[in-house]
Amino acid sequence: MKLLEERIKEDGLVLPGNVLKVNSFLNHQIDPELMNTVGQEFAHLFRDNNITRILTVESSGIAPAIMTGLALHVPVLFARKTKSSTMNNSLYTADVYSYTKKVTNKISVDQKFLLPTDNVLIIDDFLANGQAVSGLLEICRQAQAHVEGAGIVIEKAFQTGGAMLREQGVRVESLARIASFEDDTVHFVKE
Amino acid sequence: MKLLEERIKEDGLVLPGNVLKVNSFLNHQIDPELMNTVGQEFAHLFRDNNITRILTVESSGIAPAIMTGLALHVPVLFARKTKSSTMNNSLYTADVYSYTKKVTNKISVDQKFLLPTDNVLIIDDFLANGQAVSGLLEICRQAQAHVEGAGIVIEKAFQTGGAMLREQGVRVESLARIASFEDDTVHFVKE
Repeated sequence: MKLLEERIKEDGLVLPGNVLKVNSFLNHQIDPELMNTVGQEFAHLFRDNNITRILTVESSGIAPAIMTGLALHVPVLFARKTKSSTMNNSLYTADVYSYTKKVTNKISVDQKFLLPTDNVLIIDDFLANGQAVSGLLEICRQAQAHVEGAGIVIEKAFQTGGAMLREQGVRVESLARIASFEDDTVHFVKE
Repeated sequence: MKLLEERIKEDGLVLPGNVLKVNSFLNHQIDPELMNTVGQEFAHLFRDNNITRILTVESSGIAPAIMTGLALHVPVLFARKTKSSTMNNSLYTADVYSYTKKVTNKISVDQKFLLPTDNVLIIDDFLANGQAVSGLLEICRQAQAHVEGAGIVIEKAFQTGGAMLREQGVRVESLARIASFEDDTVHFVKE
């Protein structure tokens, strides 16, 4: 998505360790209009897949997920990283290891919101090692829900997550694919 | 807001300890269309206040906040409960005590996203004891940003937060105001 690539070039900051900081429009401050465009693009890409539910994980996945849900007219479910005090039903859970934070988070979803009849679209802000999406896939597997694919705002294509998921047969649609951060500049994959 | 009150009556669950569970459309699963209507209502209520930025706190505040930001065409900033690995700038921070979880969270905002020239609209999902909104007000005070008011999706009007904030001169607009949970039923404040 041209608009998104331009915004990453303009406002993204490359930090040591191949970390891309997009705090000004996605991970801390959010640009609602850009997220709306992102949501419409995901809705367009998956328009023929009869999506019944969006699944994401808090917190940075919520903005692109809710705009996709708005465009597709389906509910948005976000997995929680900490057990909420009002989550006392049976849960589907998965472990997600974060390479940047070096911690394992247990993510969970109330069983009543994910059904075997669901056609799920997974949405997340970043795809690097694929740990978060793998956790969400595991939760869908437990629910026997069908996964139609994953919509990713920014994929670090030089890391292994995208290839791993595609090899598993998961349809992964990334709106911006980063090839490298050479010379502190973001280089995108040329399609 | 009639639509919201009806939804709370229909899908809300009253738990022991005056806890209202609205996991099916706000706190775990989100109804994007309802949130869009909520955002448009907040935008309407604060349309003459020259809002320049929305401030909320992760995670459940993000959905109503981003829809308000979309309607008002302003950026949405969410305070973080845990320090993100890419938040290495100077921060404004405040302590927020959660009565339901019985823990104190430090919430923080990158100083570069909140300016003395800002007219801030605070958005949150719930108002009970007013701890979260007070923390966000404290952050705005540190930034010397002007707060135009707070937009709350659901206010527990039988708890002290709303009165405390209004006594401080804060304009609080709540779309659903709960008077009591008598007989496990939600009773709204009659305006």
